[in-house]
Amino acid sequence: MKRIAILGSTGSIGLSALAVVEAHPDRLQVVGLAAGENADLLGAQLARYRPRVAAMASGAALDRLRQIGAGAGAQLGVGRDGLVAVASHPDVDLVLCASSGTDGLEAVLAAIAHRKTIALANKEVLVMAGGIVTEAARYHGVAILPVDSEHNAIHQCLHGRDRSEVKRLVLTASGGPFRGRVPSELLAVTAEDALKHPTWRMGRKITIDSATLMNKGLEVIEAHWLFGVRADQIDVVVHPQSVVHSMVELTDGSIIAQLGVTDMRLPIQYAFSYPERWAAPLPSLDLVRAGRLDFDQPDTAAFPCLGLAYRALEAARSLPVVLNAANEIAVARFLAGRLGFAAIPQVIEQTMDAHQAAEVSTLAEVRAVDRWARECALEIAHGVESKV
Amino acid sequence: MKRIAILGSTGSIGLSALAVVEAHPDRLQVVGLAAGENADLLGAQLARYRPRVAAMASGAALDRLRQIGAGAGAQLGVGRDGLVAVASHPDVDLVLCASSGTDGLEAVLAAIAHRKTIALANKEVLVMAGGIVTEAARYHGVAILPVDSEHNAIHQCLHGRDRSEVKRLVLTASGGPFRGRVPSELLAVTAEDALKHPTWRMGRKITIDSATLMNKGLEVIEAHWLFGVRADQIDVVVHPQSVVHSMVELTDGSIIAQLGVTDMRLPIQYAFSYPERWAAPLPSLDLVRAGRLDFDQPDTAAFPCLGLAYRALEAARSLPVVLNAANEIAVARFLAGRLGFAAIPQVIEQTMDAHQAAEVSTLAEVRAVDRWARECALEIAHGVESKV
Repeated sequence: MKRIAILGSTGSIGLSALAVVEAHPDRLQVVGLAAGENADLLGAQLARYRPRVAAMASGAALDRLRQIGAGAGAQLGVGRDGLVAVASHPDVDLVLCASSGTDGLEAVLAAIAHRKTIALANKEVLVMAGGIVTEAARYHGVAILPVDSEHNAIHQCLHGRDRSEVKRLVLTASGGPFRGRVPSELLAVTAEDALKHPTWRMGRKITIDSATLMNKGLEVIEAHWLFGVRADQIDVVVHPQSVVHSMVELTDGSIIAQLGVTDMRLPIQYAFSYPERWAAPLPSLDLVRAGRLDFDQPDTAAFPCLGLAYRALEAARSLPVVLNAANEIAVARFLAGRLGFAAIPQVIEQTMDAHQAAEVSTLAEVRAVDRWARECALEIAHGVESKV
Repeated sequence: MKRIAILGSTGSIGLSALAVVEAHPDRLQVVGLAAGENADLLGAQLARYRPRVAAMASGAALDRLRQIGAGAGAQLGVGRDGLVAVASHPDVDLVLCASSGTDGLEAVLAAIAHRKTIALANKEVLVMAGGIVTEAARYHGVAILPVDSEHNAIHQCLHGRDRSEVKRLVLTASGGPFRGRVPSELLAVTAEDALKHPTWRMGRKITIDSATLMNKGLEVIEAHWLFGVRADQIDVVVHPQSVVHSMVELTDGSIIAQLGVTDMRLPIQYAFSYPERWAAPLPSLDLVRAGRLDFDQPDTAAFPCLGLAYRALEAARSLPVVLNAANEIAVARFLAGRLGFAAIPQVIEQTMDAHQAAEVSTLAEVRAVDRWARECALEIAHGVESKV
């Protein structure tokens, strides 16, 4: 029996993770749950799974949880401390980090220090603090299992192979809802347009990141930390059907690919079951029905965010933190209807340009750069918005 | 330094294997060569690689070899005994069996008994005597590394995985030069038409087998023996671009695929280098340039040979021997311009129908069934031909 804590249990990944638990009641047990503000749903989850420990993002949310009479019998916490308590609870074997944004950082480090296996669905953790997190995982002998479908695919392709066999990684990208459009056609797109992802159903922030290709850029940085490869060993290829989830090219030119249906329950279950593999209650991929798979180069002129991510990774040090923070600000402004779609990369690039890169070897340094970048990005965004 | 013997060194696979040796002079050494009748080419190879042992199929070919002054310094043999001497020479570490047809059977068994690693490019060995050969390999603790691009792909996909993780194998088929044609359109096709394979350059017999889909049928049987899976766990999907060389579906529905350029040097090198993997002096696969990959069901009405192979595998016992022998006869008659393309499966099916299936647990029994089937198929072919 594997005992699981889920950080972000009311989000898209969290709900899929609970579906995986339901499919394997003899193998998986929920012992910790943490959510943001959705007290009603977390309350229902507490009633159903009866975890030992739970947390919400704010005191107001926790009050609401108590108000609806949920959580009796569980140790309850709030904010980052609450997340850390869930992630490091002694009964937990594996922590699924699916909380959005940067909130999960301390919790992941706490889980690693308590030698929990990490199933990582949150990109920001590695983008912001990849060096700190992977070094901690090495030191404590903890595995970080990627849940993102692309990195999960690469993990499967690399299984059993020596890293010296790897020439490069190839991340596939659906291309998002605006694939094929030229830059001028992107000026007037709305948040509503951008939220229509062609192949994956996901949360709002990541769906916008998919539309700008920043999601792929963050994945490039994540892949660097997860698999120990350089920026020039990570390529992106547009593959609109999202059937090939990603690939590894080996030293002899042979490519190993992982293919599957576009359902997050599969990579989540793989991370939960690893090193085993369990049957999944899902239909198999029908390649004949898929019929056709296409591959194309990403359009870095129409989608500059991908190039910005490579720039940040190549510069390393604090620049990925700035990239991520500025992106979060710009996407939030876009979702609020304040910033145009094409202005997202502008805000990020100008914030990166304004930044003096520095080493970041502690969480405090990461947080300081993050704060600076958010303020700077917000100021730049306001300037762009006032010109409209 | 790995010391290699090549059975079939003047054929298509043999020449590719020698190109691999040339690319890795510090890692590979040719110590044995065997060819059929092409004494001039074998003579040139003996001069260049100076192996310790060599053989030709016939005394006439050996005489020609001596006549041109080749082979001084090498131990020379003839016929099956010559092949066996090459395959079991004490200085050989690995035997590449790329001789055509059934001639390699005794040599492969001799190599196994002498604990040589087997790189197998000859389908007939496993189709005729899969039980005998795999049992001998198990007994002597010898690895059989597949060189066929499909089985080589599956070997790579399975690497590092427990067999209990495997749900099914998916062999890809180019569909051959007649893909998409209806049965009536196949009546008038000639050997010349059939020899134009769309993606792979191969010998004549295997190219015709590709056009009838019998090649894929033989591969299904081969996959059964190599990977220990049942007939109903082996599927065939038509993939005209031959970029995906084959796939494995795992228990959770995840598919692992191997992709690459269509160049036999790659699977040969992998078999030579295994368990290592070496850089290859070949261009990488460019998926963006490939652009599009298609997948479709095989047309078993237009190409009945695939169904006949499944029938033979499901019946097991002596029926695969009959299938293979009847196919060799029918293809030879077709290549000679005596038999129509659509009559190839007819001859095979009628020979199978005329056969009383029996256990085959010794090589002598295999040879006896093989002889019977060849005579029977020839008789049936003559009958079909006389009706034209």
